[in-house]
Amino acid sequence: MDSTQICLAQRPVGEPDASTFTTHIQPLPDLQDGQVALAIRYLSLDPYMRGRLSAAKSYADPVEIGAVMVGGTVGEVVESRFEGLAPGDVVLSYSGWQSAAIAEGSQVRKLDPSLAPVTTALGVLGMPGFTAYAGLLEIGRPQEGETVVVAAATGPVGSAVGQIARIKGARAVGIAGGPDKVRALTEQFGFDAAVDHRAPDFVDQLKAATPDGIDVYFENVGGHVFDGVRRQLNNRARMPVCGLVANYNLTSQPVGPDQLAGFLGQVLTKSLTVRGFIQDEFTRSHGRDFVRDMGAWLADGRVRYLEDIVEGLENAPAAFAGMLRGDNFGKLVIKV
Amino acid sequence: MDSTQICLAQRPVGEPDASTFTTHIQPLPDLQDGQVALAIRYLSLDPYMRGRLSAAKSYADPVEIGAVMVGGTVGEVVESRFEGLAPGDVVLSYSGWQSAAIAEGSQVRKLDPSLAPVTTALGVLGMPGFTAYAGLLEIGRPQEGETVVVAAATGPVGSAVGQIARIKGARAVGIAGGPDKVRALTEQFGFDAAVDHRAPDFVDQLKAATPDGIDVYFENVGGHVFDGVRRQLNNRARMPVCGLVANYNLTSQPVGPDQLAGFLGQVLTKSLTVRGFIQDEFTRSHGRDFVRDMGAWLADGRVRYLEDIVEGLENAPAAFAGMLRGDNFGKLVIKV
Repeated sequence: MDSTQICLAQRPVGEPDASTFTTHIQPLPDLQDGQVALAIRYLSLDPYMRGRLSAAKSYADPVEIGAVMVGGTVGEVVESRFEGLAPGDVVLSYSGWQSAAIAEGSQVRKLDPSLAPVTTALGVLGMPGFTAYAGLLEIGRPQEGETVVVAAATGPVGSAVGQIARIKGARAVGIAGGPDKVRALTEQFGFDAAVDHRAPDFVDQLKAATPDGIDVYFENVGGHVFDGVRRQLNNRARMPVCGLVANYNLTSQPVGPDQLAGFLGQVLTKSLTVRGFIQDEFTRSHGRDFVRDMGAWLADGRVRYLEDIVEGLENAPAAFAGMLRGDNFGKLVIKV
Repeated sequence: MDSTQICLAQRPVGEPDASTFTTHIQPLPDLQDGQVALAIRYLSLDPYMRGRLSAAKSYADPVEIGAVMVGGTVGEVVESRFEGLAPGDVVLSYSGWQSAAIAEGSQVRKLDPSLAPVTTALGVLGMPGFTAYAGLLEIGRPQEGETVVVAAATGPVGSAVGQIARIKGARAVGIAGGPDKVRALTEQFGFDAAVDHRAPDFVDQLKAATPDGIDVYFENVGGHVFDGVRRQLNNRARMPVCGLVANYNLTSQPVGPDQLAGFLGQVLTKSLTVRGFIQDEFTRSHGRDFVRDMGAWLADGRVRYLEDIVEGLENAPAAFAGMLRGDNFGKLVIKV
């Protein structure tokens, strides 16, 4: 079986573009005992992947030049030498940007298409949903009546953060780019208020939307949104930091003045908690609760999700670059 | 009874100087039921007082222009209309920069001079010691074998942080200014290593002293020490923020580039915890344990302390300004 593979050609300086990736068609190796051969149906595109393109030290190793780009995938088993998986089974795997793959049977998770659309394993029921759940509940710890703010709020993490905040009795304020997304926040996701970070009066909109200040800011974007939000933080506010999309393509430090001392001063005088995390540190402590809670919330309609499905693996590079600019509307998934 | 009072004359821009304070002699009001009259013996000088000189919003109200400067004090009861306190008793009060004061009997704490020198109620057994204890144990959470770094390490907070870290099985690295203080860290306080932040090769010294990186940085200074330390922070490092002395006299934001986005990136990729605090939020949860533990550690010599006692209330302004520059050597106390 051949696999069409999108590989890292060179590390991007700034935004990834056509020169960042290259496509190969590669025959897959023979199947060994314990393995399954997969036809990839869906590929998840997520902001964290920008980090894997850089050689900079991080919590995960960078993708090597020439290697298949990494990513979560939903695939169909076409051949199995693993007990418990048979052709036709649909599984979650981490096969990356390619059309077919060999995987260890023990490393994939079988999905039940009758419970929820299989793409949700890449979104609201998968890593992004769990990021929202664990980061908000374990670090953000929203209390009844508090105000929770999240940006990229139509995205898979942001939309879950806002809806879980409301389930916990907090007031949810979403930030998104452009009037369509802002409208979706209140109309489709039930946010209490929504703010357009592209509007010239963004900071004033935000102030008006958070009359009691901000108790939890779930940080996934950075940039000018963070600059606006931080001035509204209350004493003892919590700030889970799970992403900084607006900063990922930065090629140099922003010009001064240097605001770091001022921010630390704010951390001190307001007794702020700022805590970076990656979701897998919470798998053991919160994984089981997440599956139970999020499954129930989806079933009873208290949590909704939005998917932005792009057809064709060959469109992954452009869709990925667009996502870093905020072009996607909902969880971005490639239909391979 | 008259009181010599040092009052705030004007809010300083940058370093406080001779024009910041003014001295008055003021007769005290008549003693009311429930009150005690105190002859102040010792006044504590602490970095947090710089914050009270500014009108900027903080966790505590600023000192009003014309008001007596605030501060912790040890005084002797000279007259009492409060049951349970009699002339000759020595008490901890918050009477500020003055030679005599009226206090509510219920608001002072009687000290036992036979247990420990009464000045320790302003230092290792008082607010600074508790700041170190609660911030390190509750936020820093040092584990056996981890590396804990603290600056202003001969001071009352820093020296306690290092010694408690060692009691908990961690490696303690102290940062101080000048060779005498650096020597005191290893020789008097038992730090595992000590680094001079005034040395031109400070960053290299720090790297050499932290070969396994830094797991806990107890932040009380900010400035170039923080800049050096943060490059050495390990994944999942914790940073209790209790002070930023180096920044208190800043009159404008430092020139660029803006390092805030870079720092947030570090918080994200290293899953750092940055948490500002003031000690009194932990009084209820840790106050009793502190009294028990620190008392025992002082008694058995596992914790030592150093006092820098300056004679004369009139010298408080100059001593205070010097402390902000790092001139003091140990807990700064004015003998009134």
